[in-house]
Amino acid sequence: MPTKQQLLYEGKAKKIYATDAPGVLWVEYKDSATAFNGGKKATIAGKGRLNNEISSLLFLKLREAGIANHFLEKLSPTEQLVQQVTIIPLEVVVRNVVAGSLAKRIGLAEGTPLEAPLVEFYYKNDDLGDPLLVEDHIAILKLASREEIDQLKREALKVNDVLGAHFVERKVRLIDFKLEFGRTADGAIVLADEISPDTCRLWDADTNEKLDKDVFRRDLGSLTEAYEVILQRLGGKSACTR
Amino acid sequence: MPTKQQLLYEGKAKKIYATDAPGVLWVEYKDSATAFNGGKKATIAGKGRLNNEISSLLFLKLREAGIANHFLEKLSPTEQLVQQVTIIPLEVVVRNVVAGSLAKRIGLAEGTPLEAPLVEFYYKNDDLGDPLLVEDHIAILKLASREEIDQLKREALKVNDVLGAHFVERKVRLIDFKLEFGRTADGAIVLADEISPDTCRLWDADTNEKLDKDVFRRDLGSLTEAYEVILQRLGGKSACTR
Repeated sequence: MPTKQQLLYEGKAKKIYATDAPGVLWVEYKDSATAFNGGKKATIAGKGRLNNEISSLLFLKLREAGIANHFLEKLSPTEQLVQQVTIIPLEVVVRNVVAGSLAKRIGLAEGTPLEAPLVEFYYKNDDLGDPLLVEDHIAILKLASREEIDQLKREALKVNDVLGAHFVERKVRLIDFKLEFGRTADGAIVLADEISPDTCRLWDADTNEKLDKDVFRRDLGSLTEAYEVILQRLGGKSACTR
Repeated sequence: MPTKQQLLYEGKAKKIYATDAPGVLWVEYKDSATAFNGGKKATIAGKGRLNNEISSLLFLKLREAGIANHFLEKLSPTEQLVQQVTIIPLEVVVRNVVAGSLAKRIGLAEGTPLEAPLVEFYYKNDDLGDPLLVEDHIAILKLASREEIDQLKREALKVNDVLGAHFVERKVRLIDFKLEFGRTADGAIVLADEISPDTCRLWDADTNEKLDKDVFRRDLGSLTEAYEVILQRLGGKSACTR
């Protein structure tokens, strides 16, 4: 069992620690919520636990479906071990239904279904406001090769197939989600970061009630109640299941 | 000779009139300058003449090079006849050097040369602020088919080749430019709108002095003096050459 070493990085929602095991990182999910590039912030007790539990379940589900990802083991209600990767600074967004920034960009109403899943790339760069990129921008910035861009798209669409089917069986619509990928020491690209109601739009299949971070962004009620619904529908337990 | 009929449309920089000839429109270039989606406006005496003269010369040059476009005939210093088309609501932008919104989007310094010309599509929609689109957005909005998108890109790159070579012989660097295309009654796609220092970034080849609308956007001096330099280098005359 690796032991936790020094803090390597603290982000908006997670702290990343080194361990004494080579290539293994210790992730601690925080009770903080942020939106609008840090413009809205709050501390929400229980959020770290919910995202750690949900992300662990979803990474395991994806692994079962053959999708390589960085998840190694859940350690505690708020902690997990992951494989160390170098994050590619792209947010890979898959959309099944128009919502959020897509509605604003193209002027279609939120809730409009898309005929086919849409994959978009955003530059993970807070100073620039995480702008939308076309593939040629990615090439100009040398963030990924053309082959890697195609690979990211294929993987993202596979994740969409697996998670979309998994959620729909649990009466949840997967509206859209954001993925991040990383490069391992041997150059392989694997899915990384987290997959949670912070990074997905999830609507109740019957009522279209929002069960994701839009509850926080748009002040729609209790974020933890919404995330708890997702955790329960995924079969997760509220107590520590280490 | 067609005669001018009723006003069909008044835009920021041009008025479009019907004529008594089927499929022929009468364009009058205005002495108005606007930038930042109408946020900055001015009346600049002589600008309409300069853009009409320059656009006429460039459309003729493109015609000679085999690039179909809507230009028919210059009528007066500020007026021209064009073929009627239905404008495709896409701004097709070709860039050879990083400048303007690309510098802001991807964080590279203005003036950085691109290894290959970059083609971008923006949604011609003032209410939405003319947002950048990826090709899948264009398909979702049904603005153009995949084949048409490819055609627009190819034509835009041909225009870049022809105009880039034409300008460089005249000691002007073609930094970037915006094109609009339209569909004719028989469904063909032809280059339309205007090509002028309002729609191109043009820098002096020796000094990199800006000879385009950035002079207005950024308050860099006399817009008409800059546009007059472009007209003269293109071999145009200041007087009416009808």
